[in-house]
Amino acid sequence: MTQTLFGIEKLNHKYFLFIVMQNNKDSTDDETYRVRKLEITDKKKGFMELLQQLTICDPVTDDEFQNRFKELESYGDDHVICVIENATSSKIIATGSVFIEKKFIRSCGKVGHIEDIVVDSSARGLQLGKKVVNFLADHARSTGCYKVILDCSADNKAFYEKCGFKEKEIQMVKYFV
Amino acid sequence: MTQTLFGIEKLNHKYFLFIVMQNNKDSTDDETYRVRKLEITDKKKGFMELLQQLTICDPVTDDEFQNRFKELESYGDDHVICVIENATSSKIIATGSVFIEKKFIRSCGKVGHIEDIVVDSSARGLQLGKKVVNFLADHARSTGCYKVILDCSADNKAFYEKCGFKEKEIQMVKYFV
Repeated sequence: MTQTLFGIEKLNHKYFLFIVMQNNKDSTDDETYRVRKLEITDKKKGFMELLQQLTICDPVTDDEFQNRFKELESYGDDHVICVIENATSSKIIATGSVFIEKKFIRSCGKVGHIEDIVVDSSARGLQLGKKVVNFLADHARSTGCYKVILDCSADNKAFYEKCGFKEKEIQMVKYFV
Repeated sequence: MTQTLFGIEKLNHKYFLFIVMQNNKDSTDDETYRVRKLEITDKKKGFMELLQQLTICDPVTDDEFQNRFKELESYGDDHVICVIENATSSKIIATGSVFIEKKFIRSCGKVGHIEDIVVDSSARGLQLGKKVVNFLADHARSTGCYKVILDCSADNKAFYEKCGFKEKEIQMVKYFV
């Protein structure tokens, strides 16, 4: 939203008319699309359905969800899942996670691992992915990590470059099921 | 070690001379190069010096090492560092780590992340890297992970393919220091 303000100010015995055009778009977006930590009630707000847009994500029972939530909560700052809730629809429309790996290298350094970034298909183009990634990277930095890493498809490389990441290695995988 | 055995056996009223050449190399190697979990005394056995062959790894004090060791130990099976000790020299000559990430996707599934694989430069060609990777992948499987992943340079791709891994995505990184 753009606000236009008019006023008159006296300076050196002269009167000046001033006009200020204030763009409130960012602050409005910040309120509508605030990033916060996952809450146990987010299952009812479509959190699992959002994850289904990312990969295989079969429904889980409330008990299974709560057990996993409490397990992750017990790690405190070492494993954070964040979400963006649409304030109007009360639906979760973006999420991502980061966990902090503790190493012996780099003077007992720490590395943040970002995982499971997804933005609802109806909410693309609002920079929500970038908000989520920045939130997680800031969290990793604030906990003392010397770097944050993630794995992505070649298609998503340009997006992560806009978030300040650079391509480094290749990811290898071994499936058990 | 190769053992040669001679013997005589009676079969259908005839005597047969038999010669058996038995190759004990594998079992001897298994004893000499056993994979085990990191112990707090491994700092004195060159564990940190081995990590220096991997990346930047400044020396840490005994207190720093013990604190990090105890921190990781508190995760139990969710973060395992393994080593191979040379039984003759009592030096740590290979290591690697795996930590178990707990997710909501894949029916609250789990993923093993393999990190910091290194084999002492004097012990290459003994398949110790493969032993370490297999140990860590087996651990991930035994804790219920549906997959295990790792990041590596293009140069190491062929090695991990021999360990049963396939290339999947690209790794992106953002450094803070």
